[in-house]
Amino acid sequence: MAKMIHSMIRVLDEARSVSFYRTVFGLEVADRIDFDTFTLIYLSNAETGFELELTVNKGHTAPYDLGNGYGHLAVSVDELKTEHERLTTAGLNPGKIVELNRDGKLLALFFFITDPDGYKIEVLQRHGRYL
Amino acid sequence: MAKMIHSMIRVLDEARSVSFYRTVFGLEVADRIDFDTFTLIYLSNAETGFELELTVNKGHTAPYDLGNGYGHLAVSVDELKTEHERLTTAGLNPGKIVELNRDGKLLALFFFITDPDGYKIEVLQRHGRYL
Repeated sequence: MAKMIHSMIRVLDEARSVSFYRTVFGLEVADRIDFDTFTLIYLSNAETGFELELTVNKGHTAPYDLGNGYGHLAVSVDELKTEHERLTTAGLNPGKIVELNRDGKLLALFFFITDPDGYKIEVLQRHGRYL
Repeated sequence: MAKMIHSMIRVLDEARSVSFYRTVFGLEVADRIDFDTFTLIYLSNAETGFELELTVNKGHTAPYDLGNGYGHLAVSVDELKTEHERLTTAGLNPGKIVELNRDGKLLALFFFITDPDGYKIEVLQRHGRYL
């Protein structure tokens, strides 16, 4: 059966993105494969085998058009409010914390943060469906 | 530490997308949450806890602009050639199988397939980094 193993996004600046994903989500470079015209960087941490693949196209300097189709990558964390404070203090401008209820029960507690290329990442309190 | 738990894409037609992801990747609806203006559908299978989240915005009929930033979701499979044949027979038009070598060794054996909204999915032979 097919196993989801990574998601790929194109980014402009390898160092800037690697630093962001390390600081914000504890993701480290698991692999880096350099080709003549592009570089692939695989980011992962111990929480899951799923990886984020960054593609850097050499010589591409124009910001990528993010369109309106792709939404976001989501991560779960144990302590959402602590994470929000940490990221605020680090100057990374997380969005406000949103509480989403359904039938009187908490469905999701989350905020969004934007990576250096403009991609949104949803940070969810580990709860319910979002483990 | 942050755990990657899902990737979200916006799609136009719930039934069409659910059928595609079931047929092609064995993903089933793990949850469906209906709101006034949109519906969230979580797709998963037993291979990983990572989920694909579909968002259907009610009343939205124009094709989404996929831009050029987001690349693809990747899945691994045990038998790439068998999968390619199966999807070809099913009329789903997978791209040709590509073999990528590096320093004389197989790095990746893969093809791409396109979902009903135009999102690319990379299907990789389970090998090396792509397990």
